[in-house]
Amino acid sequence: MSETPLAIGIDFGGTSVKAGVVKLDTIIDHAPPIATQDFTEPAGLIEAIVRVIEDLRARHPGIVAVGVGMPGFVDFENGVVYNLTNVRGWVNIPLKSLLEEKTGLPVVVDNDANCMAFAEWKRGAGQGTKHLVCISLGTGVGGGIIANGQMVRGAYHGAGEVGQTSIDYQGRRGHYGNMGALEDYIGNNEITATAHDTYGESGTSKPLDECSPAALAAAAAEGDETAKQLWDDIGKKLATAVMNCCWLLNPEAVVIGGGVARAGALLFEPLNKYLLDQLSGPFKDHLKILPARFGHEAGTVGAAAMALEWSDHHHS
Amino acid sequence: MSETPLAIGIDFGGTSVKAGVVKLDTIIDHAPPIATQDFTEPAGLIEAIVRVIEDLRARHPGIVAVGVGMPGFVDFENGVVYNLTNVRGWVNIPLKSLLEEKTGLPVVVDNDANCMAFAEWKRGAGQGTKHLVCISLGTGVGGGIIANGQMVRGAYHGAGEVGQTSIDYQGRRGHYGNMGALEDYIGNNEITATAHDTYGESGTSKPLDECSPAALAAAAAEGDETAKQLWDDIGKKLATAVMNCCWLLNPEAVVIGGGVARAGALLFEPLNKYLLDQLSGPFKDHLKILPARFGHEAGTVGAAAMALEWSDHHHS
Repeated sequence: MSETPLAIGIDFGGTSVKAGVVKLDTIIDHAPPIATQDFTEPAGLIEAIVRVIEDLRARHPGIVAVGVGMPGFVDFENGVVYNLTNVRGWVNIPLKSLLEEKTGLPVVVDNDANCMAFAEWKRGAGQGTKHLVCISLGTGVGGGIIANGQMVRGAYHGAGEVGQTSIDYQGRRGHYGNMGALEDYIGNNEITATAHDTYGESGTSKPLDECSPAALAAAAAEGDETAKQLWDDIGKKLATAVMNCCWLLNPEAVVIGGGVARAGALLFEPLNKYLLDQLSGPFKDHLKILPARFGHEAGTVGAAAMALEWSDHHHS
Repeated sequence: MSETPLAIGIDFGGTSVKAGVVKLDTIIDHAPPIATQDFTEPAGLIEAIVRVIEDLRARHPGIVAVGVGMPGFVDFENGVVYNLTNVRGWVNIPLKSLLEEKTGLPVVVDNDANCMAFAEWKRGAGQGTKHLVCISLGTGVGGGIIANGQMVRGAYHGAGEVGQTSIDYQGRRGHYGNMGALEDYIGNNEITATAHDTYGESGTSKPLDECSPAALAAAAAEGDETAKQLWDDIGKKLATAVMNCCWLLNPEAVVIGGGVARAGALLFEPLNKYLLDQLSGPFKDHLKILPARFGHEAGTVGAAAMALEWSDHHHS
């Protein structure tokens, strides 16, 4: 085929469902977002998604596949959504077959963390690697793993949950009973709460909205020593989870994205320092710790890239 | 081929090099062990290994390949031994090509933890799985990982180092600078030292030789509450590292072997309890925690199995 094939990527979020037409690493057309909460049942929302797909196809005849990233637990092989973290009613929905029936296009459905990892692997910072760990730092801490040049989804599509791994076997008890889960220390809200407590204890109280990761990054950039120390501590905790990924998987690169990673060097400097201090030669000599290339578009780009790869392998 | 092909498995240890003829899951003929320390240079030891291979071939004409498990850092693809943990002089030795030249047989060389994992995966407790974690508990704590039906060796052949992963980001500083490495808590010697301290503190001092994992298992079996508590604590710490493997890799099964695992239920009961308390449904509902099938023969069986698979894929 001489022309670059196009795919639709759909980033299904708790607030909105965003669809775009993706050409390689670029969203060349955005559909108007659908408000997720306008629909009390999956059927109506699926109809709205189908209409968006048809609208985009009418404008772009080169579209050959559709990829959907879902915020929850998905059976990738069968394209069934088992359940979603923040959207009611989405239980055991065979989304792939429903969309394929209604659009006639090949569809892949995966969880959003895998889509983000796929975007960075195929089109972003991790391009060209065969062994890669991608971590997304936001309200939740998620991840995706590539080993031997393949996505690792595990036996029941759960692999890549870096945020649930423990950095302290005697630590805080998390959502799933897991002690010391990374997410419970460096998730958005936990960073804010820790900062709020730390400022309070230091006698220079700050309101919660001045303790967000973005506010802490701004404060540290202006020389606030408490904020700098807080970022050092975040880097240290993240380094432990990344180090565990390295000892287990010996990746060529680790890509770090998500809102919290926008702190840049404030995060990456301590992360690198604590990480390299705790690995031996073969694990660190060629290791690259890279900021993610894609921001909020990662899910869309990754879902589309996955759809293209899948349709290449299975339909051509 | 109507007859079951045979392979030679070689378990290269710091004390002795043991070779055997392997048929499926059984060593059908053992060569007399070679004392590793009799040789000050690799060349002489390699000659001795070649003689053992030729002796075994003379007795078993069906031998089609040779596998070698090495206690150290090996480039599997090129069959080069970079260095060994406890044997001097083995630096950048192209063992695969040296043995292939001298025997005319296809040879694979991997590290011993991968060979053990391969044995459990192809011939042992993990047979039939596509996503598996194997952990060996001894003086060192090692491991091997299978994902998507393939061994995961990582970018530089280091993957699977479960014993170096951290269970406490503020824990003891280990051999590679890594804080809170599992091996530094539940390696053979650390179990003994912890038990010695614990008995000392409780006022019922025990000599070190009554604090070995085997002695502790015997004591716990006779109702010693301190010993039982020690095993509970070992199980808890191991559970954290296993849990991290599960959140990252979502395996179907985790196989646990090595000397420390001979404690049986004393180890596996707390391990299961703490592990299942800290995983969500998709990670634990179908998860099997299994004792290894092979003991000290795992390395030989696994090296031979790997050699057979490799020669199948590349030479036929």
